[in-house]
Amino acid sequence: MATTDRAVAEELDRADPLAAYRERFLAPEPGLVYLDGNSLGRLPATTAGRLAEAVTEQWGRGLIRSWEHWIELSQSIGDEIAAGVLEAEPGEVIVSDSTTVNLYKLAAAALDARPDRRVLLTDDDNFPSDSYVFQGLAAARGLELRVIETDLDEGLSAAAVRAALDEDVALASFSHVAYRSGAIADLVDITGAAHDVGALTLWDLSHSGGSIPVPLRSAGADLAVGCTYKYLCGGPGAPAYLYVRRDLQAQMRQPIWGWFGQRDQFGMVGRYDAAPGLTRFLVGTPPVLSMIGVREGVRVVAEAGIEALRAKGQALTSYLIDLADAWLTPLGFRLASPRDACRRGSHVTLHHPDAWRICRALIERYDVVPDFRTPDRLRLGPAPLTTSYADVWEGLDRLRRLIESGAHESYPTQRSRVT
Amino acid sequence: MATTDRAVAEELDRADPLAAYRERFLAPEPGLVYLDGNSLGRLPATTAGRLAEAVTEQWGRGLIRSWEHWIELSQSIGDEIAAGVLEAEPGEVIVSDSTTVNLYKLAAAALDARPDRRVLLTDDDNFPSDSYVFQGLAAARGLELRVIETDLDEGLSAAAVRAALDEDVALASFSHVAYRSGAIADLVDITGAAHDVGALTLWDLSHSGGSIPVPLRSAGADLAVGCTYKYLCGGPGAPAYLYVRRDLQAQMRQPIWGWFGQRDQFGMVGRYDAAPGLTRFLVGTPPVLSMIGVREGVRVVAEAGIEALRAKGQALTSYLIDLADAWLTPLGFRLASPRDACRRGSHVTLHHPDAWRICRALIERYDVVPDFRTPDRLRLGPAPLTTSYADVWEGLDRLRRLIESGAHESYPTQRSRVT
Repeated sequence: MATTDRAVAEELDRADPLAAYRERFLAPEPGLVYLDGNSLGRLPATTAGRLAEAVTEQWGRGLIRSWEHWIELSQSIGDEIAAGVLEAEPGEVIVSDSTTVNLYKLAAAALDARPDRRVLLTDDDNFPSDSYVFQGLAAARGLELRVIETDLDEGLSAAAVRAALDEDVALASFSHVAYRSGAIADLVDITGAAHDVGALTLWDLSHSGGSIPVPLRSAGADLAVGCTYKYLCGGPGAPAYLYVRRDLQAQMRQPIWGWFGQRDQFGMVGRYDAAPGLTRFLVGTPPVLSMIGVREGVRVVAEAGIEALRAKGQALTSYLIDLADAWLTPLGFRLASPRDACRRGSHVTLHHPDAWRICRALIERYDVVPDFRTPDRLRLGPAPLTTSYADVWEGLDRLRRLIESGAHESYPTQRSRVT
Repeated sequence: MATTDRAVAEELDRADPLAAYRERFLAPEPGLVYLDGNSLGRLPATTAGRLAEAVTEQWGRGLIRSWEHWIELSQSIGDEIAAGVLEAEPGEVIVSDSTTVNLYKLAAAALDARPDRRVLLTDDDNFPSDSYVFQGLAAARGLELRVIETDLDEGLSAAAVRAALDEDVALASFSHVAYRSGAIADLVDITGAAHDVGALTLWDLSHSGGSIPVPLRSAGADLAVGCTYKYLCGGPGAPAYLYVRRDLQAQMRQPIWGWFGQRDQFGMVGRYDAAPGLTRFLVGTPPVLSMIGVREGVRVVAEAGIEALRAKGQALTSYLIDLADAWLTPLGFRLASPRDACRRGSHVTLHHPDAWRICRALIERYDVVPDFRTPDRLRLGPAPLTTSYADVWEGLDRLRRLIESGAHESYPTQRSRVT
């Protein structure tokens, strides 16, 4: 049987130990192939009910009294992420704000902790919002922002980081999984290299948390942030999480002093006194309804288990690449992700000079949802928790048929506001 | 008929032009008297349905494609707040982050805009989280935080601000309505005084927006932030809003540079280029589900109209004070809010040495929900949109009966985590 035979996908699905988890999510529209779980995770079946209960019972009827239930949500969901998603201890992860605000808080705290050093190190494959935060901090503080040039298809190498590190570096910050290529950076090796010169590390786990193991403990990683609306299925724009290694917490201070980070929050005293532990990294009132969604998503991910998700993620993306090699390379596509499954997260990206129009046509005419990333990349994210091998076969078969039909050529080359 | 006669309340309710709005909110538990709408506004009847639709249809079925609807929510809800809640223009208000994060962004932007000035001016009656933000900024930048001593019952006076202002002041920031007493600061006069010395102003509208007119335009106010989960009924921890006067927007830069504040967000270019207008004050992905709640709350407030809400707020709080004078003053209570209705927002605070235990007993034994504020204050917030005169009568009658029974004396004096 050829790899490209649909029966192969069906056989793989029958053997998939995570297959039953697809029933734990709202069924998609019939015929839709969703390959963008790396951008917005699907809706867990329990979430709508939990949210309705939170809205009507907790807010509507419990009113202000429900704060007794809500006041520790940031900490308790953080602990669930630490235990079920990351390799971290209770009290090392907390949910708050957006990923970018958290990145700002932790980067500023790290720079304050290394006041005699003048360099913030990152790479040009980091997510743009991360890069913008660093540009802002470097400009405000007169620091050097040192930017490693990374191969956008193969990802950041530990050797390149090592070459760029010196004792002027206060903080080195990178994405664990690259948002374009899905390339995995070696979190353990790079953290060690930074520590060798006395620098702190700040990892963005947005594209890794919930899809691959995140070895924070093995690495002795210092700081991290991550997103809950991708692989953690927390809902659109759901609050992000941050991690600070326990022994660093007492010595670090973030710059946005607010009442949720105050030791005696309702004492309403005049003088700010940073709360012990991770609570000092909180700022204002968290968006409770969006937090409820995070809790549901994290629970289903944790139940499936990161090791099982990783195994399936490797198998799914390898299968996708096999199909792309057979069907799409002859049509002008080229792999823009590492070919080695060990170096790749749970999404795969393909170059094509017409990627933008192909992306639009695929969504509108073929009911397949990938996304586009500049300048010429089609990103395919078969999230392991919710995607079948048959979805991958179907998505790539339709993509092949689209290209053969030339239907994308009637689409405008002008990009829309959201890609 | 005596003021304290319940029939007076019933008569006032019959004449209340906003009476029908109570049907626009989820009915409370039978017997509950909710006097904490200034802390967490009640649930609009439409919100649960809109949220369920957003969860199931937009997130669950629309998935990533729904970002076409969500991408402008911050701006469009901001415009609804500008038009229906504040005295501001389209493009001057935007929804994002928490009140405290917004305060940090705007205060930092203001200090950057007055780099030759060394003083940040506030008062000791400002909300603690605001004060913490200013302490953090002053510490980070080596600025003087100048704190006016305010009478906590009568509120900030324009004369005291004028006396504290000089040409060293970069930014003067106060609450429009004091969180403890409900005292209104003279936004127009104080803004003018600050402008006279070349300082910028930053108003916290959390306890005024949605309950009293906010004369930003008349004042020529510079900057403001506000909360959506109190009088705007947006839901627990719903995202906050910020205001920047149009002519200031182009010259101001906030410190947290993120992709939602970038000119070409999905261009994913390497260099941060602040978006035009208010969009540059955004940072990361907004919590969409919580935003949906804000939109519903703002719409019902705007439909009722701020002038009508103000009229009823004055009448309700005056009625409450009349009952307190008759029933509670003899029992050891003392008014901790301005007696003049023109100087008072929509909540009233009473001193009592046993306020904490009274608050707990009132909630647990008498089904009346006020809140406690340190050190000895019982805060009663009869939000005009959702509270009847009969609610006020009932709440104060039960409070009187509680004190007479002495039931609160069996409660612990130790305060709980959330007050």
